[in-house]
Amino acid sequence: VERDFDRAIALVRQDDGSLLGHTSPAYANMVGPFGGMIAAQVLNAVLRQPDRLGEPIAVTVNFCAALAEGPYTAVARALRTNRSTQHWFAELRQEGQTMITATAVTAVRRATWAADEQRMPDAPAPEQCPAPQGRGFVAWLQRYEMRLIDGALPVAWDDAELPHSISRLWVRDAPPRPLDHAALMALCDVFFPRVWLRRATRVPVGTVSMTVYFHADAERLAATGDDYLFAQARGQGFRGGYFDQTAQLWNRRGELLATTHQVVYYKS
Amino acid sequence: VERDFDRAIALVRQDDGSLLGHTSPAYANMVGPFGGMIAAQVLNAVLRQPDRLGEPIAVTVNFCAALAEGPYTAVARALRTNRSTQHWFAELRQEGQTMITATAVTAVRRATWAADEQRMPDAPAPEQCPAPQGRGFVAWLQRYEMRLIDGALPVAWDDAELPHSISRLWVRDAPPRPLDHAALMALCDVFFPRVWLRRATRVPVGTVSMTVYFHADAERLAATGDDYLFAQARGQGFRGGYFDQTAQLWNRRGELLATTHQVVYYKS
Repeated sequence: VERDFDRAIALVRQDDGSLLGHTSPAYANMVGPFGGMIAAQVLNAVLRQPDRLGEPIAVTVNFCAALAEGPYTAVARALRTNRSTQHWFAELRQEGQTMITATAVTAVRRATWAADEQRMPDAPAPEQCPAPQGRGFVAWLQRYEMRLIDGALPVAWDDAELPHSISRLWVRDAPPRPLDHAALMALCDVFFPRVWLRRATRVPVGTVSMTVYFHADAERLAATGDDYLFAQARGQGFRGGYFDQTAQLWNRRGELLATTHQVVYYKS
Repeated sequence: VERDFDRAIALVRQDDGSLLGHTSPAYANMVGPFGGMIAAQVLNAVLRQPDRLGEPIAVTVNFCAALAEGPYTAVARALRTNRSTQHWFAELRQEGQTMITATAVTAVRRATWAADEQRMPDAPAPEQCPAPQGRGFVAWLQRYEMRLIDGALPVAWDDAELPHSISRLWVRDAPPRPLDHAALMALCDVFFPRVWLRRATRVPVGTVSMTVYFHADAERLAATGDDYLFAQARGQGFRGGYFDQTAQLWNRRGELLATTHQVVYYKS
């Protein structure tokens, strides 16, 4: 089966070595595409390079401008290749303009002492959590099955200040899809804006920069398969028009798969 | 007074528009310079650009290769300039090779609703905490006055697995220096490697990527002056040769100044 996700991240190599992609209406957000999909697309531009060494360890994506629905050109360059690590710079461009930039570190992993210090909180199994209701007010929300445990959007947009912005949920692609680094990259951005939760007010927002650290190799992701991930996010600081979010994603066995952070513009 | 820190981040503009800097023996680490100083140097290459818009919001630094003691060339390019935000790519080069890459978002901040959701833990005042003993085993440790509260290096390197890697300390430049974004960038890297704390074993380590989100503008940093910052760090996941660290820095009044994350290579 070719899935929406795979169609959305697809890239076609051009004669000049660049890659040609196209935004996907299936992942549309209010203005332009879902940021997680953009992050997966730019990571895929790195993953598709024939001289890539190892697997992604750290990826930072900067949202320079709102990607327009339509085609984009992706370029990725290895700026430094060491024995077991490689440093990448990548860009998505539209009409010659830089829309998205990214840096990525890829590396050959080795088995070492390991620990998941940040533990998955106790929670009911995903099957015991309420299934999503309705179809969501933007297309991309239909591409994920989210079963919320804690920290839903306020029922009333009554402008009341809440004490914290922690959300916890089970989430997977809809329809289910075997996990890989590109899909996990996108999943790192499924959390609605923390400032909406804190302020119970839907102020305009936009992620400006997002970083993902992968703690799992392809084998561990494949073993996780298409099962639910446990995802947790919270804001740390909100000031001067920008807030940050820190988040973790585990598989059902409690293995930490990714930690992720982002800084988000907000108005008023 | 010209301080070690200011001498260490100094850059001289070259005819081709690039900037010439020099590593500082005052900030030497075991191999090459202290990573926090490198991060401050590459941020300074952005801050020194005459067409820079606003103040730093998010900076990601990638450590591609060990910077050698000696001169380096710094280049910074604005890849996208919007009305109130700007996206930068910067590099430090030695002998034509890329050693360090960075992306930075700068922006004009506006007064908004604000909250420090991640609260500063209760702690004794810095004056009540033990002053550092001895001179430190590498030069850069003498450039910081660290007053540890929790999570010191193990007294015995006895290879015992500890349950967590949380460290808390008061810290400031030594001698004291008024805080600005470059100094805060460097302070975000003062934590010793979390894997040393967890394993009580000094395995080889090296930061590969580090991100700082600034929650304070120049005015708030100036108001903090040369006082101690409260700094807290912990590891989240350790696996396959890489671990991550998440950290926060507050001023004494409990204002969150920066949140920071890094991913670190470790051996065995």
